[in-house]
Amino acid sequence: MTGARNVLWIMCDQLRFDYLGCSGHPHLETPNIDALAARGLRFDRAYVQSPICGPSRMSFYTGRYVRSHGSSWNKFPLRVGEPTLGDHLAELDVRTVLVGKTHMKADLAGMRRLGIDPASDVGVRVAQCGFEPFERDDGLHPAGPYDPDPPYDAWLRALGYQGENLWEEWANSAEGPEGALLSGWLLEHADKPARIPAAHSETAYMTERAMAFLEEAGADGRPWCLHLSYIKPHWPYIAPAPYHALYDRRHVLPPVRDPAERQDPHPILAAYLQERFSQAFARQGVRERVIPAYMGLIRQIDDELGRLFRFLEEKGLAETTLIVFTSDHGDYLGDHWLGEKELFHECSVRIPLIVADPSPAADATRGTVCDALVEAIDLAPSFLEWFGGAPKPHVLEGRSLLPLLRGEPAAGRPFVVSEYDYAMRRARTDLGVPIGEARLQMLFDGRWKYIHAESFRPLLYDLQSDPAEFHDLGADPALAGERARLHELLSGWARRPASRITISDAEIAERAGREIRANILIGYWDEAEVAEARRRGTGVPEREPQ
Amino acid sequence: MTGARNVLWIMCDQLRFDYLGCSGHPHLETPNIDALAARGLRFDRAYVQSPICGPSRMSFYTGRYVRSHGSSWNKFPLRVGEPTLGDHLAELDVRTVLVGKTHMKADLAGMRRLGIDPASDVGVRVAQCGFEPFERDDGLHPAGPYDPDPPYDAWLRALGYQGENLWEEWANSAEGPEGALLSGWLLEHADKPARIPAAHSETAYMTERAMAFLEEAGADGRPWCLHLSYIKPHWPYIAPAPYHALYDRRHVLPPVRDPAERQDPHPILAAYLQERFSQAFARQGVRERVIPAYMGLIRQIDDELGRLFRFLEEKGLAETTLIVFTSDHGDYLGDHWLGEKELFHECSVRIPLIVADPSPAADATRGTVCDALVEAIDLAPSFLEWFGGAPKPHVLEGRSLLPLLRGEPAAGRPFVVSEYDYAMRRARTDLGVPIGEARLQMLFDGRWKYIHAESFRPLLYDLQSDPAEFHDLGADPALAGERARLHELLSGWARRPASRITISDAEIAERAGREIRANILIGYWDEAEVAEARRRGTGVPEREPQ
Repeated sequence: MTGARNVLWIMCDQLRFDYLGCSGHPHLETPNIDALAARGLRFDRAYVQSPICGPSRMSFYTGRYVRSHGSSWNKFPLRVGEPTLGDHLAELDVRTVLVGKTHMKADLAGMRRLGIDPASDVGVRVAQCGFEPFERDDGLHPAGPYDPDPPYDAWLRALGYQGENLWEEWANSAEGPEGALLSGWLLEHADKPARIPAAHSETAYMTERAMAFLEEAGADGRPWCLHLSYIKPHWPYIAPAPYHALYDRRHVLPPVRDPAERQDPHPILAAYLQERFSQAFARQGVRERVIPAYMGLIRQIDDELGRLFRFLEEKGLAETTLIVFTSDHGDYLGDHWLGEKELFHECSVRIPLIVADPSPAADATRGTVCDALVEAIDLAPSFLEWFGGAPKPHVLEGRSLLPLLRGEPAAGRPFVVSEYDYAMRRARTDLGVPIGEARLQMLFDGRWKYIHAESFRPLLYDLQSDPAEFHDLGADPALAGERARLHELLSGWARRPASRITISDAEIAERAGREIRANILIGYWDEAEVAEARRRGTGVPEREPQ
Repeated sequence: MTGARNVLWIMCDQLRFDYLGCSGHPHLETPNIDALAARGLRFDRAYVQSPICGPSRMSFYTGRYVRSHGSSWNKFPLRVGEPTLGDHLAELDVRTVLVGKTHMKADLAGMRRLGIDPASDVGVRVAQCGFEPFERDDGLHPAGPYDPDPPYDAWLRALGYQGENLWEEWANSAEGPEGALLSGWLLEHADKPARIPAAHSETAYMTERAMAFLEEAGADGRPWCLHLSYIKPHWPYIAPAPYHALYDRRHVLPPVRDPAERQDPHPILAAYLQERFSQAFARQGVRERVIPAYMGLIRQIDDELGRLFRFLEEKGLAETTLIVFTSDHGDYLGDHWLGEKELFHECSVRIPLIVADPSPAADATRGTVCDALVEAIDLAPSFLEWFGGAPKPHVLEGRSLLPLLRGEPAAGRPFVVSEYDYAMRRARTDLGVPIGEARLQMLFDGRWKYIHAESFRPLLYDLQSDPAEFHDLGADPALAGERARLHELLSGWARRPASRITISDAEIAERAGREIRANILIGYWDEAEVAEARRRGTGVPEREPQ
């Protein structure tokens, strides 16, 4: 294999920031991920741009906020022409390759409008969110409207499994007495092993596929950015043996919740407390059944990553490959009396983020923890810089992490922003909110977490005095000034232009004040004035940058 | 010709709202435009989304605010994939046809990224901002970087004119003693006739081309939306005989300006007062030289429109054609000590807008004046409705004017918004403002005109007590509460999502809460819970809209 610089970008789905050994979980062992942190930098305050799969991923893949790319919920198509990481890296002759999940929904109407053939090379890249889909698998194939026969199912079939829907009946079900099928969708079965051995699970399969790509890429020779995107520990919460039984109720941490949270909650929170997934996790016994499976799935990913990292070593790729480990959002798991994700408590919006840069320049921070505020959209500009591309701040709204990795002085980010569009949720219908107004916008400055809820009062948490986020101060009269300050920060963020993506600041600076060069003469009385301006070389100011 | 419904959408360039007979100019005669107003509805409070050609037009042509389409200055390319009026009407088999100016700059890099051949039908539509370019002519062809031989020049050449640049040397120059060429760019020559007869001017040529299209469209048979887009009365300020001499200094209204405006002005305003075009118009004698030419150019357009309207009558098109007359922005002409446009005083940001709907339903408002606040982006949804298309509020940010035309109760617009990116202007370099922050955003609610200037204090005018806009109240302590109210309105506007253009509200309402139908089971403990939810027919709430 060549000495080309590469990126291996590993993403889990629904992995909380605090469910790793290196981020402090007292019972969950993740030695391979911990080792990655030890040879890289662990960002301890990393936030997603939306605490739900689709929009969060579209932000990762475009380097842009949700309000900019517009794909504000799962399977809201990403508009055709929205530039992706794959587009940017293609300009540098780098392959951007997918193994696993993206949650991308193509804008087929837009592609038709622009005459883009979905079967063409460009059409595939557009439809696959900029990726070359070495293996696309969004990891959910319930009986019904989904791809009836993804490659993973075909692989299982080749291994001898039989049935209508192998993903559902084998990989995501357990087996009861007399061969009864026990669906992994049902939380009561989370303590049982999946019907397949670990080596046949989705996590193992995707790891195999990543290694198959690495073999192929070696022969191809071009540099690559491989996005290995596991669906786990996302539901269905069911793990294959032995991972289903590595943890039990003794390893389940007490829920982070307080009775005060259910007293007179903000209307949006109240609606989410009513959601089925929240009520389930608030019930006695559910956490104890589900969380050990969640932990087992993480442990399995860690084992598979160990295998993958050894493979990289053997192939001589470890020294030239930037490795990133992260997640697309967290999981409430009953904390705050909630299930799933979607709101902005730390366990939902904060993600694990480890970046291991093999360059000597990164020795400065190796094995340390960085508490700078960073965002998911920072990865795309980091990769662009890694591959030697010029920055594109007019398109990419994140900031490269490489200066932080190299211990260079980097301008700090004063706050992070995350958004959520709850148009698809009962909170909208219960509260009678128009679809266009069903939005939440979070701004967190490292202490204050301010959540703007259109048409409602805001929510506010002080993570300094209340790190567990039990006390919503959004209506506290004493904090009106603080809220006003945060609200204006958020509004300033919203007022920033995000669509002027076709011309860079450098091009603007170059073009400014050059009308006279184009013989466009505005406001000149006579030839003498024109001659004088031409003598000065420009129609405009002394202070015009050259 | 058929009875198909059509649109004739006439636009002038740089025509102030108050330089028409029907809008109250005491000396300028525009009988044909006045007659159009008499058989239609004149909108007296219409505002552009940016007081400069390119961004304003991109808003007209997309039906979206500048912050949404992103083309924030002249020739900042409109991003590929940004949906245009032409795209929307194509879905209804309506031709959207251009004769004249658009100021469109194609996003060639984006087209290349998406594999769109500029020579293909789609490529032309994308590159021409959605239009079928029957005649594209942006009306400025100075010697130098522009199209060296536009069709208009070829036409002049066929008529026997000779020279290097016929547009500049003939249509936009006068002749001095002994055949000396007197450039129409120079304000001192504004009182002289252009070197060509009126029938050979750009205004006459474009009218001819519009009539040629109408002939062709009759043979074609499909319905059409014809955008007849004159460059005049935009500079160079020079009119052909007899229009150069119809008006003189007696017809020039006194400037709308006050010495107070030059005392301690807002920094942005101060920078604009320094611009060459402002200083020129503040000088003694310039207005008296230029404004008669400006008026003559308008009078010529009116004569040409008379010819065009008679042609429509003769072809039997008058009864089926919606006619719109408007402009892309105004012209300071020395008011407020300023020249050109770009800022937000009424003479710059407010435009003439007349809509004549031949339908009986519009009899209710025929010949009246409407004082509702309307925006340039309202035209695209109006045309969509006229041609029978379903509304697209998730894409088109304007509101159809047809209810107002038909005297139907229409929800009023509480305010209008206009934006300006001064990154290309000396105000940015003089004031040392970073490119990304060089923006102004105006919100006008019918009384208060609030102008947010990033990094500076705002400007504020009370048009009730100060209709001439002489007194900037942006620093008046007594109005802090009013400014805070307006600022929050503007911020709320900015927080609105504008990029979720790939899925409609109706589709969201249909999809919401339907996970169980897709066999995605989140938060169910056991089969009994699933069965109960399936019995109810949905995984979600009683109140979910059906």
